Amino acid sequence: MDKIKIFSPATVANVSCAFDVLGFALSNVGDEMTFRKIPEKGLKIKMKDNMHLPNDPRKNVAGVVGLAMLKQVMPDFGVEMEITKGIKPGSGIGSSAASAAGAAFGMNKLLGDIFDLKTLVEFSMVGESLASGVRHADNVAPAVYGGFTLIRSLNPLDIVQIPSPSNLFVSIVHPLIEVRTRNARKLLKHSVNLRDAVVQWGNIAGLISGLFMEDYALIGRSLKDIIVEPVRSILIPLFDELKDASVGAGALGSGISGSGPSVFALSEGHENAIAVADAMRAVYQNSGIDFDVYVSGVNKNGIEIINS
Amino acid sequence: MDKIKIFSPATVANVSCAFDVLGFALSNVGDEMTFRKIPEKGLKIKMKDNMHLPNDPRKNVAGVVGLAMLKQVMPDFGVEMEITKGIKPGSGIGSSAASAAGAAFGMNKLLGDIFDLKTLVEFSMVGESLASGVRHADNVAPAVYGGFTLIRSLNPLDIVQIPSPSNLFVSIVHPLIEVRTRNARKLLKHSVNLRDAVVQWGNIAGLISGLFMEDYALIGRSLKDIIVEPVRSILIPLFDELKDASVGAGALGSGISGSGPSVFALSEGHENAIAVADAMRAVYQNSGIDFDVYVSGVNKNGIEIINS
Repeated sequence: MDKIKIFSPATVANVSCAFDVLGFALSNVGDEMTFRKIPEKGLKIKMKDNMHLPNDPRKNVAGVVGLAMLKQVMPDFGVEMEITKGIKPGSGIGSSAASAAGAAFGMNKLLGDIFDLKTLVEFSMVGESLASGVRHADNVAPAVYGGFTLIRSLNPLDIVQIPSPSNLFVSIVHPLIEVRTRNARKLLKHSVNLRDAVVQWGNIAGLISGLFMEDYALIGRSLKDIIVEPVRSILIPLFDELKDASVGAGALGSGISGSGPSVFALSEGHENAIAVADAMRAVYQNSGIDFDVYVSGVNKNGIEIINS
Repeated sequence: MDKIKIFSPATVANVSCAFDVLGFALSNVGDEMTFRKIPEKGLKIKMKDNMHLPNDPRKNVAGVVGLAMLKQVMPDFGVEMEITKGIKPGSGIGSSAASAAGAAFGMNKLLGDIFDLKTLVEFSMVGESLASGVRHADNVAPAVYGGFTLIRSLNPLDIVQIPSPSNLFVSIVHPLIEVRTRNARKLLKHSVNLRDAVVQWGNIAGLISGLFMEDYALIGRSLKDIIVEPVRSILIPLFDELKDASVGAGALGSGISGSGPSVFALSEGHENAIAVADAMRAVYQNSGIDFDVYVSGVNKNGIEIINS
């Protein structure tokens, strides 16, 4: 294979109660990336958008992933990567993860499909480290595997694919302010009350059970984060109003997507998710805040090949 | 119905990583309880063993449950409860819970089967409060429902039944020293490191996933408790040796049962569970510590009627 074009999905990490251990992929929001073999060894990057991301592979999240793979495999060719970002950086829906995971996936195809999915996640985390200073997998794993993925353990990496109920949809509002993951992490307290931790892991266990049982009401009851959300939500304008509006419009529950500022809400059914998105839009409509709104199903396949 | 005889099972709460939110019931260890209508109103208790438990209903865990139910229903008859303990108090395998849950179940039958299972759990917790000073459901809920039960939330009570893999067995060793739940709770730290909490809820999510997927290896990888076990295990003689011996004999994983001192290990297959029990027995054999050993399947039905 000399050329491949792929779609790498946006992702929602943390999923309210499951800070740092769970994420899921979207079906219709993501980056497009094209990979071409070139005679000159090494890696070239072309950014096909106006998002001011660096072309220097050593400073680009997709670039460092590609360089790490080239360093390990040492092929007798080089690669040109063309990236059309569909996800704005700093949005909280896995912009860096989509590019990093897409890079790992596409490079692997040109290199002869020699790595398994878990290894692609390992490579992708090189990009996440560059983006946020923290090696984490809760965006790149769902981007690579699709659906909901649990990162049971990071060292050693242990990824568990969790089924996604067929009628589960997500509504997302992205206020166009930038919250860097690096800064959002600084807000976190180093210790938590044991009683709160118990409440949180009861909810995580409930959320996982709800996903397995396709029990939408249980998913809704479990979508509560009493540890991270109270601290991080202060960075998100009108957060409480967005939550109230989404639940008022019938959402199962809502929370911060990743480290924000995007806010996600889960719903049973596509129509309900559209109504929830409309309710979230109405909160920002006259606030003077610019924003994007998305409604998506859960992506079951992860990164997809557009053509090759 | 004028008389009923029941079996109320022993239970393993906490299940390693799932402190305060998960428990499961045993199939062959428990209390036998007989309930008879009597003309004189009120409650009488007969203890049919030598475990020095009080006959006064106001001081007996089964008694306070019965009294609470009589107070609410106000029937025109009284009840005599005869209890043959199969579970030693202070063992950590839900001795008080078996009596409390059995009382709720048996009383309900004599009162005309008017309460649902969740309400029986609520009544049972009156007994748990008397026993340990803390209203908790992670023993009484699996005793009432059977199998694995998640207590997603205590207020309001939200119980989720989790499937049990068909070939999952438990080995338990009970060193005959007494650890009161009340004292074991005092050892707990009030706050935990956020990093540790994240590791713990990754494991809980992995355990729940493993139970749903019948993935024994995942269950094993998830059976790790880095928060409560390091603190409480100091009360259990030769705890590390028991863990090493059980895993060495093929157990999926092991941990403290409830607040101890019993130690449980989960295995795939009955024969494996017997080998694990033998390995645990060998640790205590020449130690001078008296102990009991149990091997059991997971009880799928909860409290069972022996005759009526």
